[in-house]
Amino acid sequence: MKIQPVIMSGGSGTRLWPMSRASHPKQFLKLVTDKSMFQETALRVSSSHDDAYRNPVVICGGKHGAIVAGQLSEIGVEPAEIILEPCPRNTAAVAAVAAAWVARGEEDALILLMPADHHIADDAGFRKAVAIGAKAAEDGYIATFGIKAKTPHTGYGYIETGKELSPSVYEVAAFKEKPGRETAESYVKDGRHYWNAGIFLYRASAMLDELSKHAPDIKAAATVALDKSVMCGSALRLDEATFSACPANSIDYAVMEKTDKAAIVAQVDVGWTDIGSWSEVASQDKSDNVVCVNAANNIIRSDGPLVAAAGVDGLIIVATGDTVLVARRDNAQEVRAVVDELKKRGREDLL
Amino acid sequence: MKIQPVIMSGGSGTRLWPMSRASHPKQFLKLVTDKSMFQETALRVSSSHDDAYRNPVVICGGKHGAIVAGQLSEIGVEPAEIILEPCPRNTAAVAAVAAAWVARGEEDALILLMPADHHIADDAGFRKAVAIGAKAAEDGYIATFGIKAKTPHTGYGYIETGKELSPSVYEVAAFKEKPGRETAESYVKDGRHYWNAGIFLYRASAMLDELSKHAPDIKAAATVALDKSVMCGSALRLDEATFSACPANSIDYAVMEKTDKAAIVAQVDVGWTDIGSWSEVASQDKSDNVVCVNAANNIIRSDGPLVAAAGVDGLIIVATGDTVLVARRDNAQEVRAVVDELKKRGREDLL
Repeated sequence: MKIQPVIMSGGSGTRLWPMSRASHPKQFLKLVTDKSMFQETALRVSSSHDDAYRNPVVICGGKHGAIVAGQLSEIGVEPAEIILEPCPRNTAAVAAVAAAWVARGEEDALILLMPADHHIADDAGFRKAVAIGAKAAEDGYIATFGIKAKTPHTGYGYIETGKELSPSVYEVAAFKEKPGRETAESYVKDGRHYWNAGIFLYRASAMLDELSKHAPDIKAAATVALDKSVMCGSALRLDEATFSACPANSIDYAVMEKTDKAAIVAQVDVGWTDIGSWSEVASQDKSDNVVCVNAANNIIRSDGPLVAAAGVDGLIIVATGDTVLVARRDNAQEVRAVVDELKKRGREDLL
Repeated sequence: MKIQPVIMSGGSGTRLWPMSRASHPKQFLKLVTDKSMFQETALRVSSSHDDAYRNPVVICGGKHGAIVAGQLSEIGVEPAEIILEPCPRNTAAVAAVAAAWVARGEEDALILLMPADHHIADDAGFRKAVAIGAKAAEDGYIATFGIKAKTPHTGYGYIETGKELSPSVYEVAAFKEKPGRETAESYVKDGRHYWNAGIFLYRASAMLDELSKHAPDIKAAATVALDKSVMCGSALRLDEATFSACPANSIDYAVMEKTDKAAIVAQVDVGWTDIGSWSEVASQDKSDNVVCVNAANNIIRSDGPLVAAAGVDGLIIVATGDTVLVARRDNAQEVRAVVDELKKRGREDLL
């Protein structure tokens, strides 16, 4: 059975400010390679690699239809549909829209729901994990993907494995929110906890059933918003009145923590990184417009000005034409506070 | 007797890169107040404050005649002469040119030779110290000014006092080069050592006599370069062939360490700072285009881009339209290495 990739590309990514802007969020930046994370995500499940995949559906912010179309065209991927959200309503609404869209054609089709802002080094390994998960999904499970926890990361959610269903596939015993340091260390040791990659694989009908049980209002709003959607250029725009009335909740809270259909493909070791902040972007100290003197272990990015670092380490330095950010690698979350302060000062021109 | 101020403005100031550029060196930047250090220096000894002073002579780099004229005009100071150096030949040559220029009019006139890139908080206190030094200078001494050493600064030269000549004025026992930390601490404790402010007060004839004794080649080259100088716009340009053949040496090495005419006005407490590097520039964390989140004790300057600092301290962050510098306050000297690296890369456009 073919798999329908659905790429969730609605994030705003303020923690990668100042390169990530409201008009050009982080998933569209070419940070890690010469392709954006969105493009890498689309290529990862392209039919040119594996004929198990259909052309992708992309669900993105209302203002980003043109970027999505342009970046897909750059890499020669034809979208099955670009769906525009008139406003952000979190991942449960996106999962509901995706399931409703796919069910129009074939209600038992498999959906692979993926965020657009993750980096995965081993694409072939990822597709192997998806093939393993597909069997559980065909049996009615909503499969998640558990990344081998190499460090006690306190910024990720964890999944605890339960009963084994088949080799590498388990029922989910519990979803665990971002843990404290000690708890995270115990997770890494016990071998039963995995990072939650935020990627889901399921039959459209299974997701619709679980939404009916656990989040019927989200299902209803999303379905009606899709039914009332209108073509806007070459994209499909969800009905604003209906969609804006949809409760905003994550798929984890709204469905996964409540359903008894959750499964996990465990021990996925594919070089997965959630590029959630600058500290996850690889270091780059060498470039024509970077000069380092007695400086190492810094993340330095510039889209124009020459950046000189002298005697400093462990810093994030990002320069654009109109802004400069200097922060600590070990506290990249503070970038969010900078963005909040700029909002307070009315500097939307810089956001 | 009136005093002839001579402002030495030939420095290039690479340690204040990237704001200090070859075309616009640090003494012309408005870093500490709304006036440049050069303007502050000229105003400090302006006849509008004290009729003991004549209009200043300015000796500056060959390309900086227009900046000097413009900045003097801004503050309403008329120069007695602007003298252009075709190439830098250090302070002994400048002192020789100044003495020769003044001696044309009145060979026993007093000259106050001052660098253009120092900050002095208490101008009136400085003029009082000059008045005290003038008595020693009239007696044939070359007076220096000893700043009370408040910290064991290892970046300054020190002067040791000898026999008392009059209240607050001593013969110089010895000039001490930039000391190590322990030596500097012993200087601060013993009460006989003062920071060498690099400011000199003397009769033109006294300096010419001492140059004849200790640096006759410098005196000869400088005098001939002045005799052969030509008007260039409203400035006087020293003869290039002669001046470029002049040995490059500091007034301290060439004359002061050898002469027996050195005196020191001691205990000068006027808020003197040699703005030699970013670490001497006062902190400025508050500005419309600076955002600090959990960041303090940084020196942040921007002439355009918004600078956001998050979770960092003790840094120097300087942003111009084409460059960003991030360095440590406690190692501001490394900026020089950045400039050297840029030279190596052929990036004169940024210097």
